[in-house]
Amino acid sequence: MHPVYAAMGTTIFEAMSARARETGAINLGQGFSDGRGPEPVLQAAARALLEKSNQYPPMPGLTELRQEVANHYARHQGLNLAAEEVIVTSGATEALAAAILALVEPGDEVICFAPLYDAYVPLIERAGGVARQVRLAPPHWRIDRAALEGAVSGRTRILLLNNPLNPAGSMSSAEELAMIADFCVSHDLIAICDEVWEHVTFDGARHLPLIGFPGMRERTVKIGSAGKIFALTGWKVGWMCAAPELARGLAKAHQFLTFTTPPNLQWAVAEGLATQDGWVQQARHGFQHGRDRLKAGLEAAGLVTLPSAATYFLCADLAASGIDMDDVTFGRRLIEEAGVVTIPVSAFYSEAPVTNVVRFAFCKQDAVLDDAIARVGDWM
Amino acid sequence: MHPVYAAMGTTIFEAMSARARETGAINLGQGFSDGRGPEPVLQAAARALLEKSNQYPPMPGLTELRQEVANHYARHQGLNLAAEEVIVTSGATEALAAAILALVEPGDEVICFAPLYDAYVPLIERAGGVARQVRLAPPHWRIDRAALEGAVSGRTRILLLNNPLNPAGSMSSAEELAMIADFCVSHDLIAICDEVWEHVTFDGARHLPLIGFPGMRERTVKIGSAGKIFALTGWKVGWMCAAPELARGLAKAHQFLTFTTPPNLQWAVAEGLATQDGWVQQARHGFQHGRDRLKAGLEAAGLVTLPSAATYFLCADLAASGIDMDDVTFGRRLIEEAGVVTIPVSAFYSEAPVTNVVRFAFCKQDAVLDDAIARVGDWM
Ligand SMILES: CSCCC(=O)C(=O)O
Ligand SMILES: CSCCC(=O)C(=O)O
Repeated sequence: MHPVYAAMGTTIFEAMSARARETGAINLGQGFSDGRGPEPVLQAAARALLEKSNQYPPMPGLTELRQEVANHYARHQGLNLAAEEVIVTSGATEALAAAILALVEPGDEVICFAPLYDAYVPLIERAGGVARQVRLAPPHWRIDRAALEGAVSGRTRILLLNNPLNPAGSMSSAEELAMIADFCVSHDLIAICDEVWEHVTFDGARHLPLIGFPGMRERTVKIGSAGKIFALTGWKVGWMCAAPELARGLAKAHQFLTFTTPPNLQWAVAEGLATQDGWVQQARHGFQHGRDRLKAGLEAAGLVTLPSAATYFLCADLAASGIDMDDVTFGRRLIEEAGVVTIPVSAFYSEAPVTNVVRFAFCKQDAVLDDAIARVGDWM
Repeated sequence: MHPVYAAMGTTIFEAMSARARETGAINLGQGFSDGRGPEPVLQAAARALLEKSNQYPPMPGLTELRQEVANHYARHQGLNLAAEEVIVTSGATEALAAAILALVEPGDEVICFAPLYDAYVPLIERAGGVARQVRLAPPHWRIDRAALEGAVSGRTRILLLNNPLNPAGSMSSAEELAMIADFCVSHDLIAICDEVWEHVTFDGARHLPLIGFPGMRERTVKIGSAGKIFALTGWKVGWMCAAPELARGLAKAHQFLTFTTPPNLQWAVAEGLATQDGWVQQARHGFQHGRDRLKAGLEAAGLVTLPSAATYFLCADLAASGIDMDDVTFGRRLIEEAGVVTIPVSAFYSEAPVTNVVRFAFCKQDAVLDDAIARVGDWM
């Protein structure tokens, strides 16, 4: 067994969802919506299953989907991508794996930001790279240039950014992104941008893609997810966008990870991107409503919450709430004593964890949120 | 770019299918059926899409599917697997990638057999391993113990076997497998067995899984594919089976490659495994019919073919046919001058290629095969 895996546990999301399945607790841990997703997209997938080919589609994805992804980013983010610059993957996790395996050579250093999605460090290390973590902290999780300059070395090749940031629920400002872009250009780094939360943004704020900043067009891999756009997390349809030469290299890693992605789901996502902007906008309002409801409920129960500008997640600050427990203990007791599953934010650090923040998912029906709030309230 | 990818071309299957799409030639290259697959399985997938959850299923796969895979192998191969010993993957390619990334440590040697599926060597090298290739040759592609003993060293940890063997269309005998098992046990190797063609076998011969041989139960990763079983190659649902400790390690690699696989396809495959043994048996007869038809036609056109005991593929031996051309030239001229796409078998070697064998896929309607045969005949 490779040491990266020998040392590793099961991902925290799976572990927590398994606990929820076992105990019947309300699952505000793993981020998935309890809605159905857009009906026309489900129908399109069912139709394609019965009426179109279920054999290997082209390895980099259906041309129609690649073009719709490009159109989507032109419309929503002012980007000018060609279809050939989009490689369809079996979810954003596969895109991350392909990008890291393609781009990280043994000994390369990768700057990344903690809290980080738990796949990042193992993938970097399995690729032979070294993860140089810049530690971000609540309440604002800001990235500053001094910390970046402190993390860079002659071996640094890549910067891996998750924006909007899971689990923090924060979103980088234009100034912060301009600074990061300038930093990448001046150190000749490639940026891998996990932007799967790009559409789940609140209060009228818009996500800005790093690839759109000066100097970044040729040095950025932008990763997106249909599962997040349409709240169909099980579909596992994602993509990576990059300038042609970079895209060709990414496709070669992809071809030996999954080769391709089910064509009926690709057709349905293409149709969804072409026709469901309205649904996406409505879903955004729905998630914002969930955020506000959960925030009000948790605050009323006595928890101090942190700002949530994006993602499915709202964090509570235990220290600020006067709770003298670390996040893991709090989370365990909340499962056992209140019947509510959350995610301890320390699980998103592999060094020097923040241990006083707990993440709650709000991508749920009102009744589920209300039930969870009542349980937390009673327990507190 | 990692040197493995920098040096690599696009997979031969994709390159050839792209040529077929561009030129309108008949595609007997990439192996995919032009049938619809079993109707109840398609219907089950469509139903699950509309009626069940489209959110993240459990990371190692739906329990129901894991159990049906275990039941399937109990029924067909006399194996005694528990559901926990089955990890569902997004196709057999992902299973291969996960197994290799999990099990190959830098410097480890992996014994494999050429001709080999083109993902094997890049995956082994990307994992930091060294591929030690045992070269097999037509017409029988036999593995002998002396060649194995010549390939093993103190660094050898793994043996990677594709049986039935693509592109050769050959299948290992019980004696050959017993010898391989004994070799693995005596050198303490783990076997990764790509057995995706296990059900596409002809003339009444039965595939024997290496995991069923003495001493192999605890040291084998058995990889299977629903895409191949149900001739739905685009679905990308596969699995890896292994004893519990091994399976836990494989799951950890899987969780950061794709995390999970679309639940509606998993439900449908579970239903297919439970109910479609008859369809699988009929499909086997249908493919055998295609093999016989193509063989007769190519032989009548003047090509000498090699035995095909399994897979979707029939090989022609150019030298034995008195054709003084290498496989790549023959293949290129067949596309350009006859409008038929094949795969040159030299593409399955990375060292000392066999250059006089061309692979034809016969998993096609009679009319398509007849058209291809006529084109080859006219051209010859
Ligand atoms: C792949 S499971 C993780 C889902 C998710 O994005 C989250 O809960 O943070
Ligand atoms: C992943 S494309 C390859 C399909 C196949 O098994 C073949 O044509 O050999």
